[in-house]
Amino acid sequence: WTPVTQGEVMQLQRTFTFKNFRQALAFTNLVGELAESEGHHPEILTEWGKTTVTWWTHKINGLHRNDFICAAKTDALFEEQSG
Amino acid sequence: WTPVTQGEVMQLQRTFTFKNFRQALAFTNLVGELAESEGHHPEILTEWGKTTVTWWTHKINGLHRNDFICAAKTDALFEEQSG
Repeated sequence: WTPVTQGEVMQLQRTFTFKNFRQALAFTNLVGELAESEGHHPEILTEWGKTTVTWWTHKINGLHRNDFICAAKTDALFEEQSG
Repeated sequence: WTPVTQGEVMQLQRTFTFKNFRQALAFTNLVGELAESEGHHPEILTEWGKTTVTWWTHKINGLHRNDFICAAKTDALFEEQSG
């Protein structure tokens, strides 16, 4: 995960790579389920062969402990899907 | 659709708004199915309550007639989902 700054907002971002579009979209859906279950929603950019996930907390315009937890859970989903 | 430029690449971009994250993600999946059936893949940014779709043709680093067709088909999917 790389800390990125959009405007003045610090965010956590990671790009996950896949063999094709379908697998990237499948991962987007896994992250979407995580987001719904956490009640915390990242930005998810889906492209051919890659998905970029960006976590931050809108309410504080920056990073909260929960964002790091969600980033770790996102990694775990990637491990599962990549198997 | 707004023409946007990333680097020197001209692209077509439109943001579709929804009531929540789930509907935005559902639309992302519809656009994903379109992409697979067309063999042409956009960037799709999924956020809470909105999905931003960006079409362009990598091979020519710009816009091809097919991008405009895919943009129109994306609009039709939005009408279906909203309708």
